[in-house]
Amino acid sequence: MFSNIVNKKIVLNSTTTSFFRYYSTIKNTTTSPKGFKTGTYACGLKKSGAADICLIHSEKECNVAAVFTENKVKAAPVLLSKSLIEKHKNTGFQSLIINSGGANACTGPEGEKNAQTMSLLSSKLVNAKQQSLVMSTGIIGQQLDMKKVELGITKASENLKDDWLSAAKAIMTTDKVPKLVQKQIEIDGKQVNVTGICKGAGMIHPNMATMLCTLCTDADIGEEALKSALKHSIEYSFNSINVDGDMSTNDTVAVFSNGLAGNKRIESTNSKEYLLLEKAMRQCATELAQMIVRDAEGATKFISVVIRGAKTEKDGKVVANSIATSSLVKTAMYGEDANWGRVLAAVGYSGADGVTPSKISMWFASGDGNDIGIGQKNDPSFAMQFLKDGQPTPKDDEKAAKLLSNKDVSIIVDLNSGNQQYTMWTCDLTVDYVKANSHYRT
Amino acid sequence: MFSNIVNKKIVLNSTTTSFFRYYSTIKNTTTSPKGFKTGTYACGLKKSGAADICLIHSEKECNVAAVFTENKVKAAPVLLSKSLIEKHKNTGFQSLIINSGGANACTGPEGEKNAQTMSLLSSKLVNAKQQSLVMSTGIIGQQLDMKKVELGITKASENLKDDWLSAAKAIMTTDKVPKLVQKQIEIDGKQVNVTGICKGAGMIHPNMATMLCTLCTDADIGEEALKSALKHSIEYSFNSINVDGDMSTNDTVAVFSNGLAGNKRIESTNSKEYLLLEKAMRQCATELAQMIVRDAEGATKFISVVIRGAKTEKDGKVVANSIATSSLVKTAMYGEDANWGRVLAAVGYSGADGVTPSKISMWFASGDGNDIGIGQKNDPSFAMQFLKDGQPTPKDDEKAAKLLSNKDVSIIVDLNSGNQQYTMWTCDLTVDYVKANSHYRT
Repeated sequence: MFSNIVNKKIVLNSTTTSFFRYYSTIKNTTTSPKGFKTGTYACGLKKSGAADICLIHSEKECNVAAVFTENKVKAAPVLLSKSLIEKHKNTGFQSLIINSGGANACTGPEGEKNAQTMSLLSSKLVNAKQQSLVMSTGIIGQQLDMKKVELGITKASENLKDDWLSAAKAIMTTDKVPKLVQKQIEIDGKQVNVTGICKGAGMIHPNMATMLCTLCTDADIGEEALKSALKHSIEYSFNSINVDGDMSTNDTVAVFSNGLAGNKRIESTNSKEYLLLEKAMRQCATELAQMIVRDAEGATKFISVVIRGAKTEKDGKVVANSIATSSLVKTAMYGEDANWGRVLAAVGYSGADGVTPSKISMWFASGDGNDIGIGQKNDPSFAMQFLKDGQPTPKDDEKAAKLLSNKDVSIIVDLNSGNQQYTMWTCDLTVDYVKANSHYRT
Repeated sequence: MFSNIVNKKIVLNSTTTSFFRYYSTIKNTTTSPKGFKTGTYACGLKKSGAADICLIHSEKECNVAAVFTENKVKAAPVLLSKSLIEKHKNTGFQSLIINSGGANACTGPEGEKNAQTMSLLSSKLVNAKQQSLVMSTGIIGQQLDMKKVELGITKASENLKDDWLSAAKAIMTTDKVPKLVQKQIEIDGKQVNVTGICKGAGMIHPNMATMLCTLCTDADIGEEALKSALKHSIEYSFNSINVDGDMSTNDTVAVFSNGLAGNKRIESTNSKEYLLLEKAMRQCATELAQMIVRDAEGATKFISVVIRGAKTEKDGKVVANSIATSSLVKTAMYGEDANWGRVLAAVGYSGADGVTPSKISMWFASGDGNDIGIGQKNDPSFAMQFLKDGQPTPKDDEKAAKLLSNKDVSIIVDLNSGNQQYTMWTCDLTVDYVKANSHYRT
C-alpha cells in the first residue's frame, strides 16, 4: 500500500517528495465530512434486490472538480454532468445522484432525457438551487426504468443520514466488497475530513461500466486549487491501475468540497495546507484504486509494476503500462512463473524513450517492491534479480517459486537511464477472468 | 480468406483495388521456385527430438528484402541479419540458416558470437560468397548449445533438396501445424513461383519468440521493387493479425529472389508485372498470417474485425486494432456472446479520428464479413445488426447465438465517416490460452 512507500524512504522524484512531507498528520478515521448526508434505496434495477440508488447531499453549496472517461462514446450522465460543471464553473453544487444497475450509455435522446430527469428530480427533492450531478453504472444500451428510478430517488431523499458504507454498497455492480476510505487532517487548527467511495472491478461483466468515484470533503478550497488537487490525485491512483486495459463509457471521479471545516480557504497550490489536503485526497484515491485491483474479477494476485531509473516520469509510465497490460506477463504471474523474458519483451515494445536493452536490470519480489535495498549488491530475501545489465543472472528456481507464491508480488525494472520512477498496479489474468467474461449468457 | 474479398466485389480503396486486377492469374501450386533447396536436421535443441535446423540455399545469388521486430530488445540473429543486409545493400545472398529451440535473445556477446558462427559456417558449407542470414526462435535468455547447432548445420547442408514441408516443420516451436503456401503466376510468358513458410502461434509458451517467415521466389526483381513488394505484403498480412498484442524479440520476415524464372527484371513498382508479383507475395503472406491466427494457442474462433467508412485507412487500422486487442471483446467471442457494448467501448477509446458515436453502426456475422449486402436495408442471413447510428437495434437472441456459434465470425463496424476500410484478423481469448501461458512450470 501507499503508506509503505513513505515509511521506507525510497528514492522519490521532486514532484512526489513534497507530498510526503506531511504524511504523519494524516489519520485513518471513521469521521465523515461535516454537512454531507447520504440516502440509498433499492428501487429494483438490480435483480438481486440490493440498493441501487445513492443520493449524496451537502447542506452547503460545494465547489466541485471532476474528471470523466476519455472514451469518445460517453454515457448520457457523463455528458450531462460535464456540461453542468462547465456551465456553473465548478461551483454551487449541493447534490449528486447515482444509480447502479444501468449505465444509461448508448441510449440516445431518451437516455439524455432520463439523465436530466434524475438530475432535476433529485435537486428539487433536497431543495438545491442547482441541478444535481449524475452518475450511472451497469448494463450498456438499455433504457432505465424511470418509474423505478424516480421512486428510488424520492425514497432516498426522505432518509438522508451519515451512512457512507450504505452509499458505497448502493453503487456496487460486480464488486465483491464495498469500497470506502476516510481520512482526517488538521489545517489551521481545524479538523478536515475527506471521505471517498468508489465502485469498479475492471470493465467486466457484459457491458458493465467500470469505475465511479466520489470524494467529499469539508475543507474550504477554491475551485482552481480543487481541480489541481483532483488532477494529481487521479494521476497516481486511478490512472495508475490497470485491470484489463478496457476503458468504459461511464468512468467518472468527482470531488465535492463544502468548506464547513472552517479552515482558511485554500487558494495557492504551493501552500503547505494545499499540499496536505491534496495528499489526503490522493491517499484516499490510491487506496480506493488499489481496492479495485484487489477486487478485480478472477484476480488472484495484486501486482505492483515498479519502474526505476526512467529518463522521465512519462517514460516510466509508458513502460509500466506496457508490462501491466501484457496478457503474457499477467498469465505468467497467475502461474507463479518468474518469466522475465516476457517482461523484457514488454519493456522493449513499450515505445518509451530511454530503453537500452543492455542497461536493463530486473527483479521479482514479494510485497509491494518499494522496499529499500533492491538493486543493491545483496538483494534482501523478498527480492530476486533475474536480469542485470540486459543479461540473465543465475537463477534459484525454488526461491523464485516461493517469492511468486505470495498474493502480493512486484515486478521491478530498472532502466538505468535516469532517476525518475513510476509504479502501476495490476492483477493477474486468470482462468476465472476468462470464464467470468465469456459465459454470461451461455 | 483473402480470396473471398476479391470475388465478392466489396468496396475497396484505390490502393488496394489495383492489386486485385490480376487475381485470376494466381494459382495455388506445389511447384517450388527454381534453384532453391532446403536441408533440415534434428540436432537436439528440441526436447521432442524433432527437426530444429533449417538451411535454405539458392544456387544463384539473390536479392533480399527483410523486416524485423520493432521491439527495442532484439535478438542476436536479428541484429546480425539486419546489419548484413544493410552492409550488402540487399543483394548477393545465397543462404539462410534458421534454428528453432532457442531464440538467442538476451544472450549478450556470447550470443552475438554464436549467431556469427551459424552465419559463417552455413555459408561456407554451401560455398556462398556472402555470409548467411540467420533466424532463431525458441526460449529467450539461454545460450545455444553450439556443438549441437554446428553439427546440425553441417548435416543439413549435406542433404539439400526440394522439400519445403520439412523446412516448414523444422522451424516450428509451439505451432500445431506446419505453415507452407505456394503460388504460381506467369510473367512475360515465364512461370514464376513464390513459396512461403512461417512459424508462430502468438508469443506464447514461456519466452517463445513469435513469428518467422521466409518467402522465396524465382522472379527476377530489382532490390528496390522487392523492398516495396515486401512492405506492402506485410502491411496487409502480418501487420493485420493480432493474437495477444505481445511483440517478440525475434520477429523477422525475409524474401529472397534469385531471378531463375527468366522474366524480364522487374524494376518499376507501377508495372503490371510488379503488381502481379506483389499480389502473389501478398497472398502468400496473408494466408500464412491467417494460419498463425488459426493455430493460436487455445483459440477456438477466427475473428475478422472489419472496419468500414473510416476517414483514413490508418483510422480504420487503429479502430480494428483496438477491438482486436480488447480482452473483453475476445472473451465475449469465446463465450459466443454478441456483446456489442464492449466493441463500441473499444471503438470509443481507440484514439482514432473520425469516431462519432451517433454515426456508428455495427453487425456481427458468420464467415469473414466481407460479403455483399451488409449495411444494406435487409442484411443477409449470415449477418445481424446490433447498432444503427449509435443506437441499439432490436435483438434476436436465438439468431445471434447461432451466428456466433460458427468457428469463423466477423465483427463489422461502419464509422460512417469516410470511404476507407481495414480488416484485421484475431482469435478469441480462452481458458486454454490462460492455462497454456500460466502453468508451464507448475
